[in-house]
Amino acid sequence: MDGLKVVLVSPRNPLNIGAAARAMSNFGFSDLRLVNPYEVAFREARSAVGAGAILEQAREFPTLAEAVSECSLVVGTTAGEHRELRQPFRRLELGARLIRRHQGTVALLFGSEKYGLLNDDLSHCDFLMGIPSRPQHRSMNLGQAVAVCLYELIRDPRAARTMPAVKKSATSEQTEVLRQRLQDALRISGYYDHSATAGSERRLRALVKRMNLNHQDAVIWLGILRQVLWRLKA
Amino acid sequence: MDGLKVVLVSPRNPLNIGAAARAMSNFGFSDLRLVNPYEVAFREARSAVGAGAILEQAREFPTLAEAVSECSLVVGTTAGEHRELRQPFRRLELGARLIRRHQGTVALLFGSEKYGLLNDDLSHCDFLMGIPSRPQHRSMNLGQAVAVCLYELIRDPRAARTMPAVKKSATSEQTEVLRQRLQDALRISGYYDHSATAGSERRLRALVKRMNLNHQDAVIWLGILRQVLWRLKA
Repeated sequence: MDGLKVVLVSPRNPLNIGAAARAMSNFGFSDLRLVNPYEVAFREARSAVGAGAILEQAREFPTLAEAVSECSLVVGTTAGEHRELRQPFRRLELGARLIRRHQGTVALLFGSEKYGLLNDDLSHCDFLMGIPSRPQHRSMNLGQAVAVCLYELIRDPRAARTMPAVKKSATSEQTEVLRQRLQDALRISGYYDHSATAGSERRLRALVKRMNLNHQDAVIWLGILRQVLWRLKA
Repeated sequence: MDGLKVVLVSPRNPLNIGAAARAMSNFGFSDLRLVNPYEVAFREARSAVGAGAILEQAREFPTLAEAVSECSLVVGTTAGEHRELRQPFRRLELGARLIRRHQGTVALLFGSEKYGLLNDDLSHCDFLMGIPSRPQHRSMNLGQAVAVCLYELIRDPRAARTMPAVKKSATSEQTEVLRQRLQDALRISGYYDHSATAGSERRLRALVKRMNLNHQDAVIWLGILRQVLWRLKA
């Protein structure tokens, strides 16, 4: 996956070039290529504070054909759907899966901020990929689009299924002592003076159970109630 | 899901505030809240070209407690792992799943560009969520982090499983005529003069099959070969 080439076609804004490089660094990609960038923008992006190794090693190509020459899968990104596409269009979720499966070098193309990829650029693509977005506002910021696409490429579906480790739960002994101390505190405080005490033990036990305490927090609550009781009895 | 509140805590850069709002608009979220923003930045973001309804309606709060008061699930984002966290930490893939499942109003918190969420902010959170990234470069740009988190919230896992519709394949009759025309063209061109013709029909048929043509492209290829043959025979 880290052999993937991110290709920016005719980018105009140094902040976007920098943002693309930053997202690549965050997600572990390193090969940035620029086709016919606005020279001033490329220079500014390179000289910006914090511009790292990726921008330093970014390569410039006069044409898209040269930038993707050794790639066996070329994927263009597009907001899509507003024009007749001659290439298959895939939603990002599926497109990223096809990219991950590909045996060989992949190029992922992003067009200019203003026009996106042009028809001539699209003709170099095996398929086009679109980030799902609101039909009323499809066009994404270039740096954000790069970040979202690269994230989808490195996201781990298993991570969503891995349920978090649960902390050791409080024991019944802990919750029972807690219930007892709470009941004592309430009795001394006069909580029951104006309400029925019948069934209060049972109700308090259920209330404490619903706190769903872990072992550590049970210790804290026991300490709190001991202190309060000590004061109430003084 | 569109009731989710995006809360930026102490943002400093108008471009990031604008980028957060833009990603919200792209992905269909509308409630942006700012806690103690740098006033100049908020004003600049609001007056920027293309600042839309989300920035116009963004609300400002003096404290985080006030910004999240009606929310029943508060989730903080953090690069995590560099400090001792008192709240459970979930990778984005899992955290987003828990957010989608939550019955009630959710706030998603992003800290300042420089410091992220502070420990006091974190104490308001039910859990913390981190975008998976390279350990050597965890810290993401604020606008990009917002985009990636919101994308994960709206992405559709089923879209990755939906295999693309396959175009109607070429019929055997088409591929056989194509093979015949190709063979004729090769014969007339003298392609076989220096190579064996034995088995050529069989080999060409397999070659044409491997083109894996769809119905429409088969029609194009048949036209191309008809024209070439016509010229060769002239």
